[in-house]
Amino acid sequence: MIFLLSVLSLLVCQAVLSPISNDAIFQYVDDHKDEFVQRLKDWVAVESDSSDPTKRDLVNNMMQITKDFILKLGGSVEMAEVGEQELQSGKKIPLPPVILAEIGNDTNKPTVCFYGHVDVQPANKADGWLTEPYTLVEKDGNLYGRGSSDDKGQVLALLHAVEAVNTIGLPVNVKFIIEGMEEVGSNGLDKLVEEKKDTFLSNVDYIVVTDTPWLSKKPGITYGARGNCYFFIEVQGARRDLHSGGFGGTVYEAMSDLIYLLDTLVDAKGHIRIPGIYDGVVPLTEKEIKLYKDLEFKLDELQADTGVTRFLHDTKEELLMYRWRYPSLSIHGIEGAFSGSGTKTVIPAKVIGKFSIRQVPNMNPSVVEKQVVDYLESKFSERKSPNKMKVSMIIGAKPWLADMNEPQYVAARKAVKRVFNTDADMIRAGGTIPIAKNFEEVLKKSVMLLGIGGPDDAPHGQNEKISMYNYIEGTKLYASFLQELASQKAP
Amino acid sequence: MIFLLSVLSLLVCQAVLSPISNDAIFQYVDDHKDEFVQRLKDWVAVESDSSDPTKRDLVNNMMQITKDFILKLGGSVEMAEVGEQELQSGKKIPLPPVILAEIGNDTNKPTVCFYGHVDVQPANKADGWLTEPYTLVEKDGNLYGRGSSDDKGQVLALLHAVEAVNTIGLPVNVKFIIEGMEEVGSNGLDKLVEEKKDTFLSNVDYIVVTDTPWLSKKPGITYGARGNCYFFIEVQGARRDLHSGGFGGTVYEAMSDLIYLLDTLVDAKGHIRIPGIYDGVVPLTEKEIKLYKDLEFKLDELQADTGVTRFLHDTKEELLMYRWRYPSLSIHGIEGAFSGSGTKTVIPAKVIGKFSIRQVPNMNPSVVEKQVVDYLESKFSERKSPNKMKVSMIIGAKPWLADMNEPQYVAARKAVKRVFNTDADMIRAGGTIPIAKNFEEVLKKSVMLLGIGGPDDAPHGQNEKISMYNYIEGTKLYASFLQELASQKAP
Repeated sequence: MIFLLSVLSLLVCQAVLSPISNDAIFQYVDDHKDEFVQRLKDWVAVESDSSDPTKRDLVNNMMQITKDFILKLGGSVEMAEVGEQELQSGKKIPLPPVILAEIGNDTNKPTVCFYGHVDVQPANKADGWLTEPYTLVEKDGNLYGRGSSDDKGQVLALLHAVEAVNTIGLPVNVKFIIEGMEEVGSNGLDKLVEEKKDTFLSNVDYIVVTDTPWLSKKPGITYGARGNCYFFIEVQGARRDLHSGGFGGTVYEAMSDLIYLLDTLVDAKGHIRIPGIYDGVVPLTEKEIKLYKDLEFKLDELQADTGVTRFLHDTKEELLMYRWRYPSLSIHGIEGAFSGSGTKTVIPAKVIGKFSIRQVPNMNPSVVEKQVVDYLESKFSERKSPNKMKVSMIIGAKPWLADMNEPQYVAARKAVKRVFNTDADMIRAGGTIPIAKNFEEVLKKSVMLLGIGGPDDAPHGQNEKISMYNYIEGTKLYASFLQELASQKAP
Repeated sequence: MIFLLSVLSLLVCQAVLSPISNDAIFQYVDDHKDEFVQRLKDWVAVESDSSDPTKRDLVNNMMQITKDFILKLGGSVEMAEVGEQELQSGKKIPLPPVILAEIGNDTNKPTVCFYGHVDVQPANKADGWLTEPYTLVEKDGNLYGRGSSDDKGQVLALLHAVEAVNTIGLPVNVKFIIEGMEEVGSNGLDKLVEEKKDTFLSNVDYIVVTDTPWLSKKPGITYGARGNCYFFIEVQGARRDLHSGGFGGTVYEAMSDLIYLLDTLVDAKGHIRIPGIYDGVVPLTEKEIKLYKDLEFKLDELQADTGVTRFLHDTKEELLMYRWRYPSLSIHGIEGAFSGSGTKTVIPAKVIGKFSIRQVPNMNPSVVEKQVVDYLESKFSERKSPNKMKVSMIIGAKPWLADMNEPQYVAARKAVKRVFNTDADMIRAGGTIPIAKNFEEVLKKSVMLLGIGGPDDAPHGQNEKISMYNYIEGTKLYASFLQELASQKAP
């Protein structure tokens, strides 16, 4: 009886208080803006580059800082160990622990689990940064620094939203999964989710990933993401680098073989040449075409932002389809060749070409792997080079697609309407959120990407930033979402 | 009268004393071995990498150390300023001065001018060095370190030879030109030689370059070298690096354009695809074929040394012809793409492909430049990419070929016979000694390459070394050559 009454009074109070509490919460966010920016500065300063094993201590340090902040917010935190990483050298080092945290444990409330990451992509000032990448700099309404948008800024906005809402009490139970290996494929996370599905994750109703940008200045809610199969092609010629004077014209050069192989992958128009690669792509429907027509997106703004003079496709619809629902192949670089400025007359002994294929439903990484390996081995065999060639798939992350009518999507649309007074764009990510697919497969629950990154934040590029507007209003978006979610029917 | 007598007595003394003085000189070299190795250690420790403008102070420091040592040997030294270097950024920095030095100024003696350099190629332990590249390490009869062979070790062997011979008086006048920009194209040197041809260089009878390896363990004398045209292909796509998730499949990728262009340059068998490139190559003669048959050279030893399983050519003669008398094209690397270990999902904005063409008589760098630029522009135009592409020739060094019957060649062959009790191999360099061609053109004097590097020294590669045998016996070779040269008829 007491139980029923308290539930009823909670529902009544919420219905009445919601607008007022939103105002108070929004005020709290505005009042704490400087503090929130300072915390982002502190987080960006930690060079938690997960791709570089020599920086593993900094990733671990970043995990500890995150843990401490969640404890300060009143959460309980488990640092889950997820095993070891085997380096190319054969050496093994521990993976960073994954944070499993929760605030609130009321069985009468729905439980939302947020996922984010606090590791970052590599960044060097010499690559073309205008500021030090690991020093957050505020300029013209933007906050520049590696991880400011991807994903430290978004994780912090969420945590600050929880802090703000908690001033009047959280209307839902909140859980967090925060990791430090996202940028290199979330090593160990799939296994952890599987292990925790009947314990830490057993009562989760919704999963929200906070690692995605909007399509425009208008807020977007993301219901799909492409997968990523990342490949290394290693070609080994001589045992050591050779002088091009003494050996040019006499040896089969590994670099020349690699360049040939890389050039067989994709044509000038971005069409992937690997046989069968498009077989798994789901056909385009009329309903889908309609969805693309409604999106707010301007090619000329994207041109102005990137400096690209001409895209591969001429219409908004086509461009977004090729970003979201068709696969793509990008060549990222070569390890082992001369990469400095100036000149060096070397014939590199061993070179590793790096490329990745973003795949879409219903492509399968293991099928893609076989197609790529078979194709490159056949091409290399045609070349009749005595050098050694090896193709390996280093990352094989699946694509993901959700049902956008699930309750948490409705709550997110309402929160967008409340904070920004506009309808949300329903979008997909061209990039990869491996955990989204995994959550869906293992927990059989609805997954949603509710990010606050801007379309021109340049995650993974030089001069990554988040706008002050997105960082602060995005904090309010998460706060509103927590409240709207409480008023939705259980899934 | 006094004059004539003294000349006569000198000639008599030399004829009689030559073997004895050689023994004494050789003994001096053996007695000072530890000191000579220590000096090489000191020189290798200076990271005089001329390709990296940030290390210019270290190159200048190396020039100063060299000057001080020549002064100590009793020479007079001028540090000739040769102007400025314009960096890619547009900034200008001073070039290292060139050492013009002389020991002895007797108009009755022939004058030999030695050329060498004390700058080095880049070297990083991480590239695969087993020892610190700038710390000379003695192991199994070898001295490992960057510059140990190319060219600090050879310059020091020469200076130590002068020191040794000078204990009984130099029979010839000796001059030195020692520079610090050889590895990047000897900037400013051509102009200096031109300026000094009627002053410092006016009385030079012979030019000897001390920057070349032997073909085998048998001493070799070099009478030709290939030239080098070094090219940058710059492709610019977007204004900044892009994320392959957000942009893969929608932009014309600069890296993909560059890979395509690089793949048009050379086929699997090393044949250069640029139209007209072979037009200038001098036809092979019967006499030349005979010369190649006599050389001491074993393919299996080269295989054992390099780990190459199969060369582009199956016979000794063919392999050496393709090393020495035919052009070759090598792709060295790419600047601006991802080159680290691990994974990075970047679409690089601007990439610079680096390759070079070793050319042979009678190819002309300015013709090669036009052929390459025209070809690549035509290929890029066929691709119809909206990206910006620019081809630049960064180095354009000519090939060189001498008459091996000149007196200094005869003296060198006698010196080889005396020190090593064997006939010298008459060889060519696959690499480039730009100064050789320039000396010949400007001074109209015979140029010879008398080096002491071993065939497996790995100049420009990892674990560069010189053998203790070559370093010390090579010192004796230079000492003998100075004496033999005095007994040759004037050219």
